[in-house]
Amino acid sequence: MQDKQFSISEISQWIDREVSISGWVRHIRLSGSICFIDIRDGTGSVQAVVVENQVSKNTFVNCSRIKIETSLTVTGIVHTEPRAPGGFEIVVSDIVIAHIPEDEYPISKKSHGVDFLIEHRHLWIRSSRQLAILKVRSTLIQLLRSYFHDRGFVLIDTPILTGAIGESTGNLFETQYFDLGTAYLAQTGQLYLEAASSAFKNVFCFGPTFRAEKSKTRRHLTEFWMLEAEMAFCDSNCNMDVQEDMVCWVIEKITEVCKKELLFLGRELEPLKIVKPPFKRVTYEEAIEILRKEGFEIEWGDDIGGDEETVISERFEKPVFIYNYPKKVKAFYMKPNQDDSRTVLCDDLFAPEGYGEIIGGSQRNDDLDSLLRRIEDEGLDRLSYEWYLDIRRYGSVPHSGFGLGLERLLAWICKIKHVREAIPFPRLINRIYP
Amino acid sequence: MQDKQFSISEISQWIDREVSISGWVRHIRLSGSICFIDIRDGTGSVQAVVVENQVSKNTFVNCSRIKIETSLTVTGIVHTEPRAPGGFEIVVSDIVIAHIPEDEYPISKKSHGVDFLIEHRHLWIRSSRQLAILKVRSTLIQLLRSYFHDRGFVLIDTPILTGAIGESTGNLFETQYFDLGTAYLAQTGQLYLEAASSAFKNVFCFGPTFRAEKSKTRRHLTEFWMLEAEMAFCDSNCNMDVQEDMVCWVIEKITEVCKKELLFLGRELEPLKIVKPPFKRVTYEEAIEILRKEGFEIEWGDDIGGDEETVISERFEKPVFIYNYPKKVKAFYMKPNQDDSRTVLCDDLFAPEGYGEIIGGSQRNDDLDSLLRRIEDEGLDRLSYEWYLDIRRYGSVPHSGFGLGLERLLAWICKIKHVREAIPFPRLINRIYP
Repeated sequence: MQDKQFSISEISQWIDREVSISGWVRHIRLSGSICFIDIRDGTGSVQAVVVENQVSKNTFVNCSRIKIETSLTVTGIVHTEPRAPGGFEIVVSDIVIAHIPEDEYPISKKSHGVDFLIEHRHLWIRSSRQLAILKVRSTLIQLLRSYFHDRGFVLIDTPILTGAIGESTGNLFETQYFDLGTAYLAQTGQLYLEAASSAFKNVFCFGPTFRAEKSKTRRHLTEFWMLEAEMAFCDSNCNMDVQEDMVCWVIEKITEVCKKELLFLGRELEPLKIVKPPFKRVTYEEAIEILRKEGFEIEWGDDIGGDEETVISERFEKPVFIYNYPKKVKAFYMKPNQDDSRTVLCDDLFAPEGYGEIIGGSQRNDDLDSLLRRIEDEGLDRLSYEWYLDIRRYGSVPHSGFGLGLERLLAWICKIKHVREAIPFPRLINRIYP
Repeated sequence: MQDKQFSISEISQWIDREVSISGWVRHIRLSGSICFIDIRDGTGSVQAVVVENQVSKNTFVNCSRIKIETSLTVTGIVHTEPRAPGGFEIVVSDIVIAHIPEDEYPISKKSHGVDFLIEHRHLWIRSSRQLAILKVRSTLIQLLRSYFHDRGFVLIDTPILTGAIGESTGNLFETQYFDLGTAYLAQTGQLYLEAASSAFKNVFCFGPTFRAEKSKTRRHLTEFWMLEAEMAFCDSNCNMDVQEDMVCWVIEKITEVCKKELLFLGRELEPLKIVKPPFKRVTYEEAIEILRKEGFEIEWGDDIGGDEETVISERFEKPVFIYNYPKKVKAFYMKPNQDDSRTVLCDDLFAPEGYGEIIGGSQRNDDLDSLLRRIEDEGLDRLSYEWYLDIRRYGSVPHSGFGLGLERLLAWICKIKHVREAIPFPRLINRIYP
């Protein structure tokens, strides 16, 4: 029943021909003997015009019953109409109504508080702005996957349920796993990707990731999507090269492919168009100096937090790498820096325009003994990591990788303030509904 | 450091030229003054030949230290060599060893029990057979995503952590969600896709899915990947049309793109090549008759289990739809069949060759009142479903969708016996390691 229909996005190909379009009513206006119905179908929207003396009496009477979010199928001839939004209209010959809401649609044109909107996220996603953001998201994901697939990276879906945790012992969601005790929801697929990179050399994963972190900022979700890549025979510089190439490629593509959506969102394209290699590479030490000059009370050894990220991020027109952080603020698996034993070989990539960290990467510790010491120092259960240590026992290689936070990247691309609008159904510390 | 290297898969383009290839030793044989090293790099494997009087003394001495899974970089000239596996060999001028294992590699050529292999899954994935299966998986996923993306379906990542469960009240993994009580790991993204299909018309999701089911069969994992699609203004027949088209398209493509891997796995291609439309559509009632003739003691109203699936699946050369099951064996959200109130409008697609169910689909109940009754009958918490009911309150439409079990599809395509080999790191009721 669906394949006989047309999409509004293709309407320009159907001028002067009859089409049937199924969708939902965004707006309706009855003006004497003419009724204007603004219909959306998920691919676009179009104005349908019902003229009293060109349709059956019943059809015109039905128009007065139609409310916002009524679902229907209209049949009619496509005309060019410069005065109509989009430049086309459908002159209706027939309307088949699927369903007229009994109640008023909860989301009206008046402004609603964000709590109300998130509580109605299942309806809010029908709004033009949310439709645009989520279409960019869908395209962005396809582009990112193609980037890696086309370059010979093998997709390795890493498990969510795991005994070996990746980042830190806190902030984990737990579940009872049959008779095997507690399982954790993965904070990262990295450890598994490392194993796979010794099989396939270049691998990636892209899935949901979990942090039971009590952070209530515009950059945090408890469940978010992360793209991770891992490359054997690749050092920290090589790692930054790949990140830079990927970000430049995907920004160029998305600006092309989703230009219409980005302009609709009011996103200026210039700041995206200048995202070309090379990105500046700033050491952690230099970053601390920058921050102190900006008036932050920050010392060598401190982590760089959200407010500091914003400030650094605003000082650069393009994304910028901050690299080689102190060991103590980073995860156990990072490779010590031979030139400065206080630091590890890692990088964070900050997006410009105040967006801050979108990628974290590092060269991994490929030495069995020092890695083992770090696992013990962290108080991790060594038995759960035996398989991870095997990667260093059998054909260990220099290898590096990174994780890209999808919602943070999308928030920057669409220039939206809070990552909660960058995912269809956000999970926040105070929200698991809808 | 990585981008100067070559991939073994591209070796035919480098005849008579010098290359450096980094990888792992699969096999080594020292024969007097010649040493043959079989190297894999994740893109393929090649034979490197070290001739004593053509390399430094040190390099040749090093050859005697090399063990299986040693990681190294060899430099040399590519020659065509009909006697070498693959038709090429590298005549080595230099070897740089990254790491020689201290211990013998645990996986040898002798046959290991499957428990041993799964316990060493992080190493087992380096074996040729597992490499081939996981490459097919990676390509299959990319193809499936492209199928939907290229047809205008919008990707909607549905949440894993949820209060509204999809399938049934049992078989759920639970976790404490901050102060909001218990959250469940999603068994399906369908309910959320339904909400999104009222925004975008055609949507899909593709992510990990969880069933805390104590099933220990060759078809069950506790964590698996499921592709789900949902289409507004699409009835049960339209739904089967889309499933048929998608399966035919993806089988044709994968047979082309991964021919090498499938042949390596010993997969006959004929049974895949005949997968063309139309697929037979058999009612549940007819299926019961078939099973009774085959000697099963099964009555109208019983569910069709694993053994029954196998038998039906073996009776058809192509995938076959079994449709319109009894209401009581299917989920609450399916639309009642107006022509037979005992049944619902649904379909299961069985793969041939004994593989059984790979897809489950249905037209969804779009009527508020009867859906509400079903939610109450099932003893589900109505408050968690208010948002789901809103889809029926505001512009309800006939809509349908389906879920495809990735590992089951892959198992059939590769003709492997157990789904545990169809996922990088399987999760079974008795396994969460590695």
